[in-house]
Amino acid sequence: MATTAVLSRFGASDRAQLAADAGRLIERLRKHGGGPNGGVTRLVYSPEWQAAMADIEEWLLESGLAVRHDAVGSRFGRLQGESSSVVLSGSHTDSVKQGGAYDGTLGVVIAGCAIGWLARNMGKPARTLEVFANCEEESSRFASNFWGSRALTGRIAPGETDRLTDENGVTIGSAMRACGLDPAAIPSAHRKDLGAYVEPHIEQGPVLVESRDVIGVVDRVVGVRVIRVTLHGVSGHAGTVPMANRHDPLAGAAEIMSGAETIARRMGPPAVATVGSIAAKPGGFNQVPGEATFTVDFRHTDSDVLDGLE
Amino acid sequence: MATTAVLSRFGASDRAQLAADAGRLIERLRKHGGGPNGGVTRLVYSPEWQAAMADIEEWLLESGLAVRHDAVGSRFGRLQGESSSVVLSGSHTDSVKQGGAYDGTLGVVIAGCAIGWLARNMGKPARTLEVFANCEEESSRFASNFWGSRALTGRIAPGETDRLTDENGVTIGSAMRACGLDPAAIPSAHRKDLGAYVEPHIEQGPVLVESRDVIGVVDRVVGVRVIRVTLHGVSGHAGTVPMANRHDPLAGAAEIMSGAETIARRMGPPAVATVGSIAAKPGGFNQVPGEATFTVDFRHTDSDVLDGLE
Repeated sequence: MATTAVLSRFGASDRAQLAADAGRLIERLRKHGGGPNGGVTRLVYSPEWQAAMADIEEWLLESGLAVRHDAVGSRFGRLQGESSSVVLSGSHTDSVKQGGAYDGTLGVVIAGCAIGWLARNMGKPARTLEVFANCEEESSRFASNFWGSRALTGRIAPGETDRLTDENGVTIGSAMRACGLDPAAIPSAHRKDLGAYVEPHIEQGPVLVESRDVIGVVDRVVGVRVIRVTLHGVSGHAGTVPMANRHDPLAGAAEIMSGAETIARRMGPPAVATVGSIAAKPGGFNQVPGEATFTVDFRHTDSDVLDGLE
Repeated sequence: MATTAVLSRFGASDRAQLAADAGRLIERLRKHGGGPNGGVTRLVYSPEWQAAMADIEEWLLESGLAVRHDAVGSRFGRLQGESSSVVLSGSHTDSVKQGGAYDGTLGVVIAGCAIGWLARNMGKPARTLEVFANCEEESSRFASNFWGSRALTGRIAPGETDRLTDENGVTIGSAMRACGLDPAAIPSAHRKDLGAYVEPHIEQGPVLVESRDVIGVVDRVVGVRVIRVTLHGVSGHAGTVPMANRHDPLAGAAEIMSGAETIARRMGPPAVATVGSIAAKPGGFNQVPGEATFTVDFRHTDSDVLDGLE
């Protein structure tokens, strides 16, 4: 591969060694929250998450990197370079419920293996390199999407630590404290020394499989608009309300759903529109619904197009 | 009104008296299971149902009728005529959850008031008349639709009393025994002396209101076909699976729902098609569904048409 040519000391045995190491590390991390069917549930600040983070710290230290964590609990393994500008690389350590063992973890492992190899073989780099084990990206426990990245970029709002709660009513602030983290210190996580960020991640779609490519480079990031639509109509008896007299919100929802799908198909990639959830009330098979609620998730790379879709 | 002309002894004061009696009886029955919002929950063989049936027995006796109950607990108030062939009239005494106070009850009250008036004023009729307070019609507690009518027509299958259970696992047989009824006696409820049946019932649709008619006569009974459709597709990430690669069962469901609606509208009355319930799995707003389940309720008076619709 072209990329290996620039690393004069990187040979086939290194590649085999790194591939074996990466596989072992993935399996080691899978243990923290892994279930019998291979899926992983590792919610931020849970015992499984704490165990995974402790494990990550251990192998980053073994790789010869300087390890620290920030105020929200993200871990960093640093290889100091000539320049103070940092190239950060990694991914998230939390999972969705019953997530894949490679989701997030693969990015941390790839960055760790690569920077560890560089530390052992190439000496001090021109730019400082850091492995990033992001504490949270998945809204896995709190409605706190991008918690780790928002801490890094100074975008956690005052009061969020008391406001965000999990399904048991535990605030994210108290969950942090249970992990030995101080919510008041969050502003200290804001970094201004980051020159670049590289996030290796599994592809969650079928494009690479179908094109038979081994790797893809993200050249655009889509924006997302999620709208929750509730249509109100008039509930009635399925037998006695003639079709012409109906105000059936689910029939309307079906048309809107088909419409959203058609629009996204007509626009072509990268537009996507997804109705992921739907419900009708009262919900009896023999009742004309009085209410229909569904979500529409629009994604596109162009915010003007997104505004139009919405 | 033309119908009053045939009853020479029926005058305006009788009409006013009967209307007042009927209103009082409806309110008296509403007490058994009535909630603060006016709705009534009176499931078959429940304490509320037992209290309503005891109340019905009492006023049928006061009306001068011979009262008895059958093996499943339906009550009958009999005015013996010259002929043994019986004209039965009434409706159901059970309710759906939070049903209307007039649903079912009105039919029992109208029959009771009318036959009671005849008993007091007209002497022995040519044909025997009976008020029917049907124990169950609504599948209100068990999946036992038409329990009372099926008992009358000998259509309760052996073993149903042990097989049908309510949401707490109580069998309909043990619920009957708790009301002092013997499930083994069900065959004795089968009647062959019924010459005609008249069921007065509120209209549950808007047709009479719109046509400004006071009363309608049912000239056809619709058949019902309910199908539960589950479509299987391939679940995926709402962002990373391009539209062209999707196998989204909910998108397919939306088309089928619109199609069912369109077919029923095109056919015109009495055809109706209703999708009353729907769900998508896994159900996340950011997930292409992998499964969509919905019900379609088709009704028409012609069974060949129903077969075609299905």
